[in-house]
Amino acid sequence: MTNKDARTPASAQEGPAEAGTSVGWHKAYVEGSRPDLRVPVRQVHLTNGQSVGLYDTSGPYTDPLVDTDVRRGLAPLRENWIVARGDTEEYAGRPVRPEDDGIKHTAPRGGLRNLDAVFPGRPRQPRRGRDGRAVTQLAYARRGEVTPEMEYVAVRENVSPEVVREEIAAGRAVLPANVNHPEIEPMIIGKRFLVKVNANIGNSAVTSSIEEEVEKMTWATRWGADTVMDLSTGRNIHTTREWVLRNSPVPIGTVPLYQALEKVDGRAEELTWEIYKDTVVEQAEQGVDYMTVHAGVRLAYVPLTANRKTGIVSRGGSIMAAWCLAHHRESFLYENFEELCEILAAYDVTYSLGDGLRPGSIADANDEAQFAELRTLGELNRIAKHRNVQTMIEGPGHVPMHKIKENIDLQQEVCDEAPFYTLGPLTTDVAPAYDHITSGIGAAMIAWWGTAMLCYVTPKEHLGLPNRDDVKTGVITYKIAAHAADLAKGHPGAQEWDDALSDARFEFRWEDQFNLALDPDTAREFHDETLPAEPAKTAHFCSMCGPKFCSMKISQDIRREHGGSKAEIEEGMAQKSAEFAAAGNRVYLPLAD
Amino acid sequence: MTNKDARTPASAQEGPAEAGTSVGWHKAYVEGSRPDLRVPVRQVHLTNGQSVGLYDTSGPYTDPLVDTDVRRGLAPLRENWIVARGDTEEYAGRPVRPEDDGIKHTAPRGGLRNLDAVFPGRPRQPRRGRDGRAVTQLAYARRGEVTPEMEYVAVRENVSPEVVREEIAAGRAVLPANVNHPEIEPMIIGKRFLVKVNANIGNSAVTSSIEEEVEKMTWATRWGADTVMDLSTGRNIHTTREWVLRNSPVPIGTVPLYQALEKVDGRAEELTWEIYKDTVVEQAEQGVDYMTVHAGVRLAYVPLTANRKTGIVSRGGSIMAAWCLAHHRESFLYENFEELCEILAAYDVTYSLGDGLRPGSIADANDEAQFAELRTLGELNRIAKHRNVQTMIEGPGHVPMHKIKENIDLQQEVCDEAPFYTLGPLTTDVAPAYDHITSGIGAAMIAWWGTAMLCYVTPKEHLGLPNRDDVKTGVITYKIAAHAADLAKGHPGAQEWDDALSDARFEFRWEDQFNLALDPDTAREFHDETLPAEPAKTAHFCSMCGPKFCSMKISQDIRREHGGSKAEIEEGMAQKSAEFAAAGNRVYLPLAD
Repeated sequence: MTNKDARTPASAQEGPAEAGTSVGWHKAYVEGSRPDLRVPVRQVHLTNGQSVGLYDTSGPYTDPLVDTDVRRGLAPLRENWIVARGDTEEYAGRPVRPEDDGIKHTAPRGGLRNLDAVFPGRPRQPRRGRDGRAVTQLAYARRGEVTPEMEYVAVRENVSPEVVREEIAAGRAVLPANVNHPEIEPMIIGKRFLVKVNANIGNSAVTSSIEEEVEKMTWATRWGADTVMDLSTGRNIHTTREWVLRNSPVPIGTVPLYQALEKVDGRAEELTWEIYKDTVVEQAEQGVDYMTVHAGVRLAYVPLTANRKTGIVSRGGSIMAAWCLAHHRESFLYENFEELCEILAAYDVTYSLGDGLRPGSIADANDEAQFAELRTLGELNRIAKHRNVQTMIEGPGHVPMHKIKENIDLQQEVCDEAPFYTLGPLTTDVAPAYDHITSGIGAAMIAWWGTAMLCYVTPKEHLGLPNRDDVKTGVITYKIAAHAADLAKGHPGAQEWDDALSDARFEFRWEDQFNLALDPDTAREFHDETLPAEPAKTAHFCSMCGPKFCSMKISQDIRREHGGSKAEIEEGMAQKSAEFAAAGNRVYLPLAD
Repeated sequence: MTNKDARTPASAQEGPAEAGTSVGWHKAYVEGSRPDLRVPVRQVHLTNGQSVGLYDTSGPYTDPLVDTDVRRGLAPLRENWIVARGDTEEYAGRPVRPEDDGIKHTAPRGGLRNLDAVFPGRPRQPRRGRDGRAVTQLAYARRGEVTPEMEYVAVRENVSPEVVREEIAAGRAVLPANVNHPEIEPMIIGKRFLVKVNANIGNSAVTSSIEEEVEKMTWATRWGADTVMDLSTGRNIHTTREWVLRNSPVPIGTVPLYQALEKVDGRAEELTWEIYKDTVVEQAEQGVDYMTVHAGVRLAYVPLTANRKTGIVSRGGSIMAAWCLAHHRESFLYENFEELCEILAAYDVTYSLGDGLRPGSIADANDEAQFAELRTLGELNRIAKHRNVQTMIEGPGHVPMHKIKENIDLQQEVCDEAPFYTLGPLTTDVAPAYDHITSGIGAAMIAWWGTAMLCYVTPKEHLGLPNRDDVKTGVITYKIAAHAADLAKGHPGAQEWDDALSDARFEFRWEDQFNLALDPDTAREFHDETLPAEPAKTAHFCSMCGPKFCSMKISQDIRREHGGSKAEIEEGMAQKSAEFAAAGNRVYLPLAD
């Protein structure tokens, strides 16, 4: 997680002074081979003069030198790279229709507004590959090209650009980056790289405003979300997505089926391939970086869910199952998969092949329905790769610990090591209100064993809509799971972060502990609850054991008294014994002595 | 976790009506082979007429028919069983001295108060084995005796009493039950049984009152703590412990070294075997059920910690290391271990052999110091067993995921499968304020692999003293880890709890979901945040997906439309297809349609 690259950060500025933000760190940038390739780093400056660079997902919002405005959107960082490749063209684009925003089509059909109208920022036209060609990072990687996006993630991950290119070319990693989302800071998802975390946002039956969704996105990335999925349903779905995309420094994922269902007023059986395809084009033109497609829910698999305890728990899966049964036909997503690949390739939209039949309870884990769908996803993965579409595979769900490894092992086998992207899994069903924890356990384990990205679960899972605090709790819990996995995988540099924090702890550098923490604000707040005074932050003790009854203090005394190395201590033990006693080394003084 | 014993609960009363407590469950008792052997069960009554019995640690406090009073203490449930064995005797006991409560010995030495004075409840004299004989559950088990305590835990765990006896006799399980703590409801710790959770309480430099400590204990057991350790230091340590013991339905553990250090005003080098031994007798007479003894911190191991990142992080370990170095002598605990065994055997105090050299950071995990001590604990375990003292072994600490299994495997090997009792382990150092989660991950994994009891970690770990909310969060997190492990171990009956909750979820029985939840209060509160109205608790949807956009609802529709079994669905799919469409099956109606 730490960035110890020899290159000095290009600029290191004061961190933002907004309320609640920690001091002691700075937004810095590591420059690549060209001046427009600047990779952000959260540079933590320690009181001992050292500094530690941490992976930074927060975007320009934490750079006080960048003037951000959600009505204008972020600067199109990648635009020159995309244009310079010369393989895309701007075009008029599909007209935006009222029903794209869930407004009933009693209004006249046809173009009503263009993209400019739904977002007040700079005017833009959508872009796609010339003559329908694949403009994907996969295509470039296979041709041996290292794109600026690949170099960017190489700097971010402290690996060589060639490793990035190889992993993408082999289909073991994806770099989601729609040509219509030039605002993103590129990132990579694959088992050779740091484990990533996705946060879901989105309004639902209970309406939340567009501004709230943008705010949830920036809030989630501030705490470390690597990608964000906009799962909005209902009204203003198109416009909300436009605002989120124009302001997002991270790749945005969606489930186009949700919006398609809105367009047929929620009647699953009225869905058609044409409506679905139109929705995919609409979202691809806006810049969605990856899309969940439930093409593995085949007609023949639906009966396999009949004896399940909790049936089908994926929204997309249940919609497709209802469609298949209503028409008694094979899924239109499965039957038109090749055509869908052509569309995605022309924008570089990455597939996230959905697990519509994932288990929704411990009882249903690893059953026939789940694994039948997984094998189909493996088949679709090969088709997508053949068409140069980047692809990752979604995974469960609810799985007891002893059945987790089988999931990643089978997925890696049947999907040719394509990146696995799992929801948890939850390791028990009995703790609603704590499913960030039931699932954080499973997430850490499955990531250790090779899962590339973890979809977060908030405390509200199964109960209600997550608020701002829930989003933060979900992201932090999943950053813990991801980092624990990075450590267990022996990811180069991962342990430097732990070491820096533990050094600070042992040396009672409280401010450094806070600033290095995943959540500096809460760590400081918890410390101050018991010992609020400023001197306590330089004190050689903490509130747990009192002023002198502190094991670390005693350990330090031992080292000071007996030398710093094992040999010194052994050599000096005998002669030091008397001195130690003579010095009256009190390890504890009662407060009221 | 569920109790499906054929025996009907002896009595099922209304649950308590106090604020915040859920309705829909009752305190029930399963009667054993004798009328005074009644095992408590939390009997959850579901709206579909079924009921589920859950393991209940909350003691008489949740039984509305029992009139509890913390000034009187709990009824001595086991007293007749202990007396009937005829192998113990009451005696005058060691006089209670002012310094037992941390009051400076400028006051006249000698007996000042007796036990009656420090606790207002029924007068009692301490009890011990006649002629110093071992009155331990281990000794009985080896002789082939099934004690009422063993039968009690057999009912609790749904196993035969003979299994309980065998596991104790083999040293693979302990049943901590001091003859001076007759108030406890017996429980067992061993890998063949349900994974247990310990919660720590105790005042520190920042004083908390005696009543607060009793309240923390009952609060922790209400949420599922199986044992409680009183880690108090400072003033009123003796009196606090007396109050906690007389009111505790679960075994109480302590670290006698803390109080011994108080008696020498915090000067580690002034500790002596005599002061320590006197403290052990004092606590054994009060009824402490298990004691952490750091006898594995040998002089020769101290230099092994010299090159560590975080030195010695165990309080007890650092105190003993300081003593060893000050005197340049072998640990007095190690040297007097056999005599200590004799004392513990006479009261049936269980050893918890402390891991004084456990790692305090990811960098120090599984190092030479840690494993050298573990091998010594294995040696001490054999001595203790030889003396008929029940023994468990403490474990780490901070360990990355890929190094966890080595801990339990080595412990089981060198300690002859004695119960392992670990603190987490924390799987990363970078998340202060979230160490219940960093450690909950490691706890679940190590419990799956055979750890018998988990010592909880609260969000305040490394930062401050846990308050009431922190205690609850710590206990719930660890109950999740323990139950996830029970599932992964395939513990008989464990999954019935998950199944009952998942059935309720699939059938939209919201009240049943809440009542079956590990924390019904928070689950209900989270649900009500978005959908507070009472009808929402019987609605066939939830706030996440809106009134009709619900995968479980669609799944149910599918079953209803197409039959309940796989064969029926396959058979009926073709003919049902037309009907389904004709019925106009809308799976989603926009709210403002």
